[in-house]
Amino acid sequence: MKKVLVTGGAGFIGSHLVDQLLDRGHRVIAVDDYTLGTPENVKEALNNERFELIELDLLDLDKLDQLFMRENIEMVYHLAANSDIREGTRSTDRDLKLTFMTTYNVLECMRNHQVNKIFFASSPVVFGRKDKPLTEDMSVHPESLYAASKQAAESFIMAFCNLYNIQSWIVRFSNIVGERATHGILFDFVNNLSNNPLELEVLGDGRQCKPYMYVRDLVDGVLYIVDHADELLNVFNIGPKDATLVADIAQMVLDAKGDQQRIVYTGGEGGWKGDIPTYGHNAIKLKNLGWEPSYDSDEAVKIALQRM
Amino acid sequence: MKKVLVTGGAGFIGSHLVDQLLDRGHRVIAVDDYTLGTPENVKEALNNERFELIELDLLDLDKLDQLFMRENIEMVYHLAANSDIREGTRSTDRDLKLTFMTTYNVLECMRNHQVNKIFFASSPVVFGRKDKPLTEDMSVHPESLYAASKQAAESFIMAFCNLYNIQSWIVRFSNIVGERATHGILFDFVNNLSNNPLELEVLGDGRQCKPYMYVRDLVDGVLYIVDHADELLNVFNIGPKDATLVADIAQMVLDAKGDQQRIVYTGGEGGWKGDIPTYGHNAIKLKNLGWEPSYDSDEAVKIALQRM
Repeated sequence: MKKVLVTGGAGFIGSHLVDQLLDRGHRVIAVDDYTLGTPENVKEALNNERFELIELDLLDLDKLDQLFMRENIEMVYHLAANSDIREGTRSTDRDLKLTFMTTYNVLECMRNHQVNKIFFASSPVVFGRKDKPLTEDMSVHPESLYAASKQAAESFIMAFCNLYNIQSWIVRFSNIVGERATHGILFDFVNNLSNNPLELEVLGDGRQCKPYMYVRDLVDGVLYIVDHADELLNVFNIGPKDATLVADIAQMVLDAKGDQQRIVYTGGEGGWKGDIPTYGHNAIKLKNLGWEPSYDSDEAVKIALQRM
Repeated sequence: MKKVLVTGGAGFIGSHLVDQLLDRGHRVIAVDDYTLGTPENVKEALNNERFELIELDLLDLDKLDQLFMRENIEMVYHLAANSDIREGTRSTDRDLKLTFMTTYNVLECMRNHQVNKIFFASSPVVFGRKDKPLTEDMSVHPESLYAASKQAAESFIMAFCNLYNIQSWIVRFSNIVGERATHGILFDFVNNLSNNPLELEVLGDGRQCKPYMYVRDLVDGVLYIVDHADELLNVFNIGPKDATLVADIAQMVLDAKGDQQRIVYTGGEGGWKGDIPTYGHNAIKLKNLGWEPSYDSDEAVKIALQRM
């Protein structure tokens, strides 16, 4: 029986994808180098005989190739990547290697072993700052190495798709929140709260405004897109129509987990250089395919907070 | 006195750029790995005391870094790349290394040594097939590894530009013709003619239609853009407003260099997988900056033929 390969499968989003793929009856192999992922994230999946977890560094092309030789893989969900934008600004080859080169290696193995379906987790940061809600057909303008690596990976997927008939789903995720997160605003805020009984420090001026999705809702959308979008190349943005202010998130975190801390803003428009402080989604393309998020952005943040 | 570094400076376009930079009084260092470039291309420049030619593989980051440490470089014109699209389809890591990784290494050295101006030779193939003349703000869709590598390089330049204040000029060249070419349609046709007294074989059905520029006209435009576009990030397409049919080029080649050979078409829409058989330029952005090509597409082909 054919298997689905999830790279980064012990990570935040990858582990939720593993759970839902198993629920749907697939045989699943997860590979992870445990940079951010942990076996703990897939502890329930590990009880399932249709699941296997393998420690593997995707930069090791020989080992990856052996995996493709050994296993009968029908599709790759490629989620392994650097997910820490700030750290990628300090180490200039981190995104290059963990996001871009891993993608190139996966594509090479797929080409060598005639695996002809790939899902890729991309990001709306490829667009840079735009003054309109994002649509799929806008020009790209990466402003961080994280964004550049996602965009470079998209470009190689598009080329392999065209040259070697690899059916591709490139989906650009809005900000994702939920249990098992390893970074991001909720993770940071909740951590900050437990470390400081007096203040909740917020990077920027609090007016940054981004669309948030709850991770299980996202995975539902991802699987819908793969099931229903049937072009050779399928590119979608995914996110709620609305967005949530960072200042509102800070208040929600205080309400849910706080102890009367005072919110302190560091000032400035964004949290770090290369951050896109404000963006919105035009979700028409995905709506026309027949799918919308179950939660709006504020609801997603609240649900995530309840389950963290 | 500060120097200008031209990568791929012994190559087709690079060598013409070297000539014009020297004419304008710059001190110029050309580096080349002689994959396609040759010292013969810069033989006149080599008589100029303001010029130095260095054999260097840009994939050797240590050697490149030593060059940046040793020399007082004010700007990099980065033209080193794989320029053979077809060969890049056979060797899947050729474009990755020669076009993308060379760019990353150049950017890293610039960041390390505070060199804060880069010109990058890109290509309209980053857009893929579009049903309208190309403008700078269209979505990208690389269909070959050549295109993917150019797009990936653009993405990293944009990120380094934003993160490290490296002023960047990304210019997407239409098809370029002229003396010292190492590949491309005129080069192939003239070679084919001298090898076959009876037939001129043409890939595709002859209806491919692309805009051509004469190489010295292109270099004039490149230097105009660098002198006049003064944003931190400057992205321009460059090419004539019109285009030339491959069938017409075949006839022009026969008229100029032929011996009554018969034109034979291999059939199909494009020469090879990943080729963009037909495209046009909307040259408004560059016209508004104050520059237009001196020759239309047909004239460019004829001048190039005269000088080959």
